[in-house]
Amino acid sequence: MAAAAAALALNKTANSVLYPPHPYYPLDALVNGYVENKDGVPYLLTLFFGACAILFTATYFVGQSVTPKLNRVELFSTMWFVLSGAIHLIFEGYYALNFADMGEKQTILGQLWKEYAFSDSRYLTQNAFVLCMESVTAAFWGPGCLIVAYMIVVRHPMRYPLQMLVSGGQFYGDVLYYATCGFDHFVWGKTYARPEPFYFWFYFFFMNFIWIVIPGYLIIEGSIISARAIDKAQRQEKGKKVQ
Amino acid sequence: MAAAAAALALNKTANSVLYPPHPYYPLDALVNGYVENKDGVPYLLTLFFGACAILFTATYFVGQSVTPKLNRVELFSTMWFVLSGAIHLIFEGYYALNFADMGEKQTILGQLWKEYAFSDSRYLTQNAFVLCMESVTAAFWGPGCLIVAYMIVVRHPMRYPLQMLVSGGQFYGDVLYYATCGFDHFVWGKTYARPEPFYFWFYFFFMNFIWIVIPGYLIIEGSIISARAIDKAQRQEKGKKVQ
Repeated sequence: MAAAAAALALNKTANSVLYPPHPYYPLDALVNGYVENKDGVPYLLTLFFGACAILFTATYFVGQSVTPKLNRVELFSTMWFVLSGAIHLIFEGYYALNFADMGEKQTILGQLWKEYAFSDSRYLTQNAFVLCMESVTAAFWGPGCLIVAYMIVVRHPMRYPLQMLVSGGQFYGDVLYYATCGFDHFVWGKTYARPEPFYFWFYFFFMNFIWIVIPGYLIIEGSIISARAIDKAQRQEKGKKVQ
Repeated sequence: MAAAAAALALNKTANSVLYPPHPYYPLDALVNGYVENKDGVPYLLTLFFGACAILFTATYFVGQSVTPKLNRVELFSTMWFVLSGAIHLIFEGYYALNFADMGEKQTILGQLWKEYAFSDSRYLTQNAFVLCMESVTAAFWGPGCLIVAYMIVVRHPMRYPLQMLVSGGQFYGDVLYYATCGFDHFVWGKTYARPEPFYFWFYFFFMNFIWIVIPGYLIIEGSIISARAIDKAQRQEKGKKVQ
């Protein structure tokens, strides 16, 4: 145990030269070239949620004027898929492309990720799972969401199967995201969130929970509508054979 | 750098007391209480592939006799979902329950995992992603596969939606499985497979690739059949409104 403690102390000295100190948890996590955000939190969050609100509202008006026949669920689904697709492509795509040196970024998106990372430092430590899951999300669920939004507006018959696959991917990715974090916390005693409840509960738990609830609903909706149509087609097929 | 090297050397000394040496890569991976397999590789592999072959064949005969109307694709799908579900529940379920001390197991399943781990040592090092992905696979895709198999035999209309979700989950889990391994190899220079090509190409690449090819096909099949049925239902709905 003494040897291990000595090794740890030496390790810390060596690492502090390569990796500057930072406010992320665990405090000995290796964050590449960390620089403190230059902009304030209210400014950054206003930009992010403001952009989301504008896009969400714009989709509402565009959707309503292009296809006035869209019912409430269809209109809300379109708004959701456009917003979700934009977040995947722009926000998560930025992370997938810049994961290696996010700690030193001072762009709006880079600063937003450094702010979010207070709830999950894995975004700054080149974690294999987080990077791979985010890359798949940006490259596949991002365009997938926009294609589903388009398909809903034109009432394409492939919209429900694709909705199920995209929402299923978001749901499963999110479950693994929560689960890997919980595993490292409970099994390895490694906690990635800062101790302030706001970071854990708002950023980590609540923001990600949206991608459990809405995709969960859309998976069930897509499954039921597909199954009903299949049931109808099967009955007609049977009816024909009997005749 | 000298400090880092010294720390590494000290770390190694400390760890060798807690973790015995083992043949897995990277050689400094921490494998809990490793004990060499007591049974030979041909014996273990014969048991595994023999059990798979028996189950696969048995499903063929049972499926054919219970529902002689099953076409080739339906019969093969049933055989696949029964085999795949059994592997998820029994083989991967065993891992999910025993991941903490797999290195010392001498049961058939434990020895099989220690053999497979030559191609991916993460199964012996309590890796967060592998454990979470395997647990979801065992708990959800396992029973899900068996439910789909049953639904195919009784031609339940929910079989295609569920087939898409289960196959989508298997596919995505497998993509992340490959991707996280590749990331750690290329970005961190950490390789989890032993250098012998057999382990990498047969166990890691080929065995997992089966869960890319067949679920990939089943996702496309389920999507096309669902979309066709939805298309038909939409046309009839439209026809009714016009009348």
